[in-house]
Amino acid sequence: MATKILILNGPNLNMLGKREPGIYGSETLQDIEDQARTRASSHDLDIDFRQSNHEGELVTWIQEAVEDTAGLIFNAAAYTHTSVALHDAVRASGLPMIEVHLSNVYQREQFRHKSYLSAIAKGVICGFGVDSYLLAIDAMSRILKSES
Amino acid sequence: MATKILILNGPNLNMLGKREPGIYGSETLQDIEDQARTRASSHDLDIDFRQSNHEGELVTWIQEAVEDTAGLIFNAAAYTHTSVALHDAVRASGLPMIEVHLSNVYQREQFRHKSYLSAIAKGVICGFGVDSYLLAIDAMSRILKSES
Amino acid sequence: MATKILILNGPNLNMLGKREPGIYGSETLQDIEDQARTRASSHDLDIDFRQSNHEGELVTWIQEAVEDTAGLIFNAAAYTHTSVALHDAVRASGLPMIEVHLSNVYQREQFRHKSYLSAIAKGVICGFGVDSYLLAIDAMSRILKSES
Amino acid sequence: MATKILILNGPNLNMLGKREPGIYGSETLQDIEDQARTRASSHDLDIDFRQSNHEGELVTWIQEAVEDTAGLIFNAAAYTHTSVALHDAVRASGLPMIEVHLSNVYQREQFRHKSYLSAIAKGVICGFGVDSYLLAIDAMSRILKSES
Amino acid sequence: MATKILILNGPNLNMLGKREPGIYGSETLQDIEDQARTRASSHDLDIDFRQSNHEGELVTWIQEAVEDTAGLIFNAAAYTHTSVALHDAVRASGLPMIEVHLSNVYQREQFRHKSYLSAIAKGVICGFGVDSYLLAIDAMSRILKSES
Amino acid sequence: MATKILILNGPNLNMLGKREPGIYGSETLQDIEDQARTRASSHDLDIDFRQSNHEGELVTWIQEAVEDTAGLIFNAAAYTHTSVALHDAVRASGLPMIEVHLSNVYQREQFRHKSYLSAIAKGVICGFGVDSYLLAIDAMSRILKSES
Amino acid sequence: MATKILILNGPNLNMLGKREPGIYGSETLQDIEDQARTRASSHDLDIDFRQSNHEGELVTWIQEAVEDTAGLIFNAAAYTHTSVALHDAVRASGLPMIEVHLSNVYQREQFRHKSYLSAIAKGVICGFGVDSYLLAIDAMSRILKSES
Amino acid sequence: MATKILILNGPNLNMLGKREPGIYGSETLQDIEDQARTRASSHDLDIDFRQSNHEGELVTWIQEAVEDTAGLIFNAAAYTHTSVALHDAVRASGLPMIEVHLSNVYQREQFRHKSYLSAIAKGVICGFGVDSYLLAIDAMSRILKSES
Amino acid sequence: MATKILILNGPNLNMLGKREPGIYGSETLQDIEDQARTRASSHDLDIDFRQSNHEGELVTWIQEAVEDTAGLIFNAAAYTHTSVALHDAVRASGLPMIEVHLSNVYQREQFRHKSYLSAIAKGVICGFGVDSYLLAIDAMSRILKSES
Amino acid sequence: MATKILILNGPNLNMLGKREPGIYGSETLQDIEDQARTRASSHDLDIDFRQSNHEGELVTWIQEAVEDTAGLIFNAAAYTHTSVALHDAVRASGLPMIEVHLSNVYQREQFRHKSYLSAIAKGVICGFGVDSYLLAIDAMSRILKSES
Amino acid sequence: MATKILILNGPNLNMLGKREPGIYGSETLQDIEDQARTRASSHDLDIDFRQSNHEGELVTWIQEAVEDTAGLIFNAAAYTHTSVALHDAVRASGLPMIEVHLSNVYQREQFRHKSYLSAIAKGVICGFGVDSYLLAIDAMSRILKSES
Amino acid sequence: MATKILILNGPNLNMLGKREPGIYGSETLQDIEDQARTRASSHDLDIDFRQSNHEGELVTWIQEAVEDTAGLIFNAAAYTHTSVALHDAVRASGLPMIEVHLSNVYQREQFRHKSYLSAIAKGVICGFGVDSYLLAIDAMSRILKSES
Repeated sequence: MATKILILNGPNLNMLGKREPGIYGSETLQDIEDQARTRASSHDLDIDFRQSNHEGELVTWIQEAVEDTAGLIFNAAAYTHTSVALHDAVRASGLPMIEVHLSNVYQREQFRHKSYLSAIAKGVICGFGVDSYLLAIDAMSRILKSES
Repeated sequence: MATKILILNGPNLNMLGKREPGIYGSETLQDIEDQARTRASSHDLDIDFRQSNHEGELVTWIQEAVEDTAGLIFNAAAYTHTSVALHDAVRASGLPMIEVHLSNVYQREQFRHKSYLSAIAKGVICGFGVDSYLLAIDAMSRILKSES
Repeated sequence: MATKILILNGPNLNMLGKREPGIYGSETLQDIEDQARTRASSHDLDIDFRQSNHEGELVTWIQEAVEDTAGLIFNAAAYTHTSVALHDAVRASGLPMIEVHLSNVYQREQFRHKSYLSAIAKGVICGFGVDSYLLAIDAMSRILKSES
Repeated sequence: MATKILILNGPNLNMLGKREPGIYGSETLQDIEDQARTRASSHDLDIDFRQSNHEGELVTWIQEAVEDTAGLIFNAAAYTHTSVALHDAVRASGLPMIEVHLSNVYQREQFRHKSYLSAIAKGVICGFGVDSYLLAIDAMSRILKSES
Repeated sequence: MATKILILNGPNLNMLGKREPGIYGSETLQDIEDQARTRASSHDLDIDFRQSNHEGELVTWIQEAVEDTAGLIFNAAAYTHTSVALHDAVRASGLPMIEVHLSNVYQREQFRHKSYLSAIAKGVICGFGVDSYLLAIDAMSRILKSES
Repeated sequence: MATKILILNGPNLNMLGKREPGIYGSETLQDIEDQARTRASSHDLDIDFRQSNHEGELVTWIQEAVEDTAGLIFNAAAYTHTSVALHDAVRASGLPMIEVHLSNVYQREQFRHKSYLSAIAKGVICGFGVDSYLLAIDAMSRILKSES
Repeated sequence: MATKILILNGPNLNMLGKREPGIYGSETLQDIEDQARTRASSHDLDIDFRQSNHEGELVTWIQEAVEDTAGLIFNAAAYTHTSVALHDAVRASGLPMIEVHLSNVYQREQFRHKSYLSAIAKGVICGFGVDSYLLAIDAMSRILKSES
Repeated sequence: MATKILILNGPNLNMLGKREPGIYGSETLQDIEDQARTRASSHDLDIDFRQSNHEGELVTWIQEAVEDTAGLIFNAAAYTHTSVALHDAVRASGLPMIEVHLSNVYQREQFRHKSYLSAIAKGVICGFGVDSYLLAIDAMSRILKSES
Repeated sequence: MATKILILNGPNLNMLGKREPGIYGSETLQDIEDQARTRASSHDLDIDFRQSNHEGELVTWIQEAVEDTAGLIFNAAAYTHTSVALHDAVRASGLPMIEVHLSNVYQREQFRHKSYLSAIAKGVICGFGVDSYLLAIDAMSRILKSES
Repeated sequence: MATKILILNGPNLNMLGKREPGIYGSETLQDIEDQARTRASSHDLDIDFRQSNHEGELVTWIQEAVEDTAGLIFNAAAYTHTSVALHDAVRASGLPMIEVHLSNVYQREQFRHKSYLSAIAKGVICGFGVDSYLLAIDAMSRILKSES
Repeated sequence: MATKILILNGPNLNMLGKREPGIYGSETLQDIEDQARTRASSHDLDIDFRQSNHEGELVTWIQEAVEDTAGLIFNAAAYTHTSVALHDAVRASGLPMIEVHLSNVYQREQFRHKSYLSAIAKGVICGFGVDSYLLAIDAMSRILKSES
Repeated sequence: MATKILILNGPNLNMLGKREPGIYGSETLQDIEDQARTRASSHDLDIDFRQSNHEGELVTWIQEAVEDTAGLIFNAAAYTHTSVALHDAVRASGLPMIEVHLSNVYQREQFRHKSYLSAIAKGVICGFGVDSYLLAIDAMSRILKSES
């Protein structure tokens, strides 16, 4: 059975491709999921791809992931900058986590330059649009191999 | 068919009139809704009046509003000061938004002086109790007319 | 005899409609005064509408208003952000005051986000152009009625 | 009928005893509930013991507690440091509240040194593991007696 | 001929005794002038006692004082906290200056704790109501004697 | 022979019950000592209860306590916020220490929100009046048992 | 019997006149005491004039003063800027207190611009050398008369 | 007819040459005007050279300059560091503006390092005494030529 | 001819694999170059791989790269946090740049959390050791294809 | 023999006219040198015109200049904001130095508003493109004449 | 008679060698005194070696030292970071003072990086354990010789 | 063969004795080298004494020192305050390093109070002129002996 990784998407990412293409590109979250699934397959990885607008639901999903998941790729969107709860959930899970962002957050408002997740991430990838996810899958595959 | 505007109320506003009348007055949220509906009618506007304690639910309602709503009047209450997710939801919606507060937030704690919503609002109205909502409906009516 | 309210305008507002319409709109201060007078009449209010570039003159006008004025609508413009003297004048007057701004100051430079007047205002209305004044007149009318 | 107190637990506390015992100890939330119930009985107090990962659900529970609850013991975990909504909910409830933490938050990251709850708490107890709850029950018992 | 000292009063001090007696006491500026004149006489000093709401006028008066004045007692009121121009005027005048305040500014808002005048004053006296002026006259008398 | 714990009280606590009962309650330090002694006895603990207005004396007492004392309960009062020397003394002693305060320091001035002791305390208890001490004795009893 | 006031002097003031006359003048603390005593007599006041290098001793003296003293004139010197304990002692004493400094502290290092005493003083007098004390005695005499 | 430029001088500059020659040199404002006029002539420019101690008067002069003036050379002196009103006036005028200072403000107090004018200036020249003005006239001449 | 990309390495990276393997891993810079070259070949890209301890030399190399290079992968190491000169060089070059780091800089000292390069990067990749470079090559390949 | 002045140019200025003409204009550094040489000749001054990307090389050139140079005109570009070494070199040289910038640095990023050179410059000229250099040569000529 | 220097040790240094050898080493204060005495002898210096936990006592000792002491070597320990009184005492004494620390304070908590003594010290030596004292004696010997 | 230590000198130190003797004394760097060599000999140590104005060159020298050097004495001068690269180089070298300064940096500008080197130094010696180096050699000799 393939190793499973959880790809979590935070608030408003369900609107991708429908709003503000200048910042986030024209691809929808479904497009990202499709490409992520294909890329994961090439590494013999299964993905569980989810989105929620609820901080609490994201916390719960991370807690549940511990059972059958090997790694976490996390685009927490707005919650990146405000959520200590997600910081705690990821740290408590003990799962290797990669923080991703579609846009380069350092070119945006000051309040997006601070992340509660970076300090507990294996690594951070931002600014490459959909490719941020694909590169993270490649990186996660390497991390999981090196750990096994 | 009447143009629809969404009036969103954030956490704890369902307790209005039941607690702390010294700060928020004695009218309940239902009172506010009734008066808002009457005022909106006078501008030939329909209102969808909602309250939630959940940041994520507020995000979702804003996303859904895009389909059939012309404008947003938003008393985000406590989330005004902490939610980047609501900032993102409003901005992504592209809807004209007016930020309202019952009390004058500048007479209260320092942490209520910062708003994540003001920078993306058409305008801000605070300190007039229920009238903050009614004035916002008047203002929104003008904005929608000038844009059409 | 009609109740009188004082509408005070701070520095550079005499240039309205002549410069920077992108920020402040194309209406002149005279246009605002005309609309304000009409709106006030509908509430059976008299208005005294003034503008000064001098902080000291604004202070003096507020002091004199105590004699025969019931409320103050104040667009202090640049002095909003720098004048403790106007803060003191308004507070000493004991008059109910509404702070107004044509533009949404929260979308402009950082130094315009701080107001010495908000903490002593009944309420704040900003971002609606001329309508900021008209909404303030409506609000003041309600405040004066509720107090009498 | 015994007086009821509400013991609320914030995000990730459902993972207690399963993750990071170095920080939080090896007891589960169920263990804490059992001990809390026993201790409360000894004071002739009933407890309603709950946990949620959702800020909004915690807000709602506090609002509902007003009906039949005499006091609140609150370990808001991560939301301690980020939630103005919980601050507002507690204050509006008018219930005496004791803030508790399992670990000594002052020995951890800087962002855990700030609490939105302390300013509205009767008192704060932190660093004693499960005993933080038990001491809080003792303290609440005294507070309720002195108030009655 | 008696030595002359200038006693300057800043914005809103003309309202003394008419507004906010809780902070500033019930005496009017005329009362202060009368008492100051009497006290000055006892030191064989003449006083020129003035008040202005205009920062620029205060600057000008300080400049003119250089001709025939031996010292300056200055209650700059609100301008204390915001005026670099008055700082420059006093420093350029070369006159010994005593900064006075009726109220204890350190018990009031944070923005009143900073003074642009203290660094160039001979000394500072605050919190004694009218006596702040009288003590300053006594002190100035001593300074002028020790310098002559 | 009973295990001994040192209960240290910092500056001004000798005035308890004589001054400012609104903040600190009406009980005297002797009352607290009496109640503490009774409570300690119930845990088979002996207490050495002291007060000093001298930072240096408190330092010395902590140093001497190492010889025959098992734990430290410390209400450092004003020195909580300013004393690195007490921080060093406690840390060097190696004794388990519980920080207590009668009042909830987070409801008071900003300068009381910072503690040099919290980072080296086992735990912190504040806001419960005399009960802060009694709860700390209970907690210390548990700590000493779990360590033995 | 004459009313007694306590004049307290903080650390290093016993060295007055012996060191750094450029900052503090050439008069010794004994000279100040002599002049203070003479001035107090003229107001029919008795003075208790003391100096200590120990923060704790100053705290104790303030506590003891409550018994037979009507007011406090306090030059806390270096402790002005660092002592919360003295702040607490003065506040608890309930005595009217005047803060004095020989030099104008606002012309010296930044760390001397902050005072823990100003917020609880009746008033502040600084910069007049020995006259700071004499003016404070005059002011205290007035305060005591107005209160009796 | 020669192109006209306005050279504005802020508060206290009328005292030049009379006070503090160590900082500002020994030339009077009249000397500067004379040299400026000569230099302007050499570029076939007319100058209107003014000074005011009133912030409001400077605002008004800038507003009026729009009619017949091609550029603005502005030594706002103390108002440089405190006046948002002058910032607004210059920006609204649309005139090219050069900020000048006689002294090198970066060698003086911290509060002189911040300028509300620099962000809207074409350029800044400081530290060269009278030559700051003459260099600014040369620079303005070039700017006006390149724009025409 | 293959498209060329420049891979620049900042100070101390020549020591990789020789020092501090706990932070940077055991591979040498030569190992990284070898792997990078292989990966680049797979994208039909040529690489120019360089290291310098000199900020100025790195500036010069970026300037020269404009001639024949399509993209820049930049691990500026310590200069990331201190060099405005490299910021300017990259921006002036107009080349797409990806910022890479071997370690997760957000888990290290505070001064490594600020980057002068992020704001002008296409994207940022950090924390994956050698893979940070390989992922950046993959990402650059995509960027160059999408631009062509 | 003509007096010599050194005109130093910092990092990336060798790219002038080739990159980012929107900010720096279209003239090359060679163009600036040519114009500077011509202008200097008119003042009977010789110039030594250099550029380096190396902070250390700029330090060395300043040190060497002491031998045969009368003044320094310095556009340190990016090093303006980060180099204490250049501050030290200029100060140690004892040469009169004028700081110049092509663009108005106050209209750019916050980190360009701070200069390590301004505090030791005779004066600062920024925002006039090539003319910043030419005006500086004029100013330097005056300074050298006044000193000789 | 040998020249005398005073070696002062602040709070908790009497515990040296008994507690926390990981930070301060295993030598006792007596060991340090012995080695210091030997080293001083080699320079023909007498030492007066003292320790106090009382800030006030340290102040007094410095004051008294003026009579018969040539220099001061001062390890103020915790008071280094909090005592303005010791700053004042040392400065008033006029004695050359060398600040020493056993540990490298810059590797410890942030609050130990600030010293009230450094600005008035001849020099600072930290991080060398006992050798910090011995090196300071060597340095003091040189200072005293160069001054005589 | 004698153990070798590297004594590194940063920018502008080659100018010692030629410029600013008031701050740095009149001895040249050659004088320091001579005295250092003599002192090192007395400890049977060989020294490699170097100076560079180039940050990168200093980095490289530290890297090369690893081969045959036992310790590093480092006066990084201006780079002390700005260079993360030197911090990294020293840390990576694993060599014991002593930070030295000729002057007492705490008596100079604020920006000289921060050191990137202190946190990785064995110890710091500043303020003793040439003796800072000689004391550091003595200290290094002790460190090397205690380690061997």
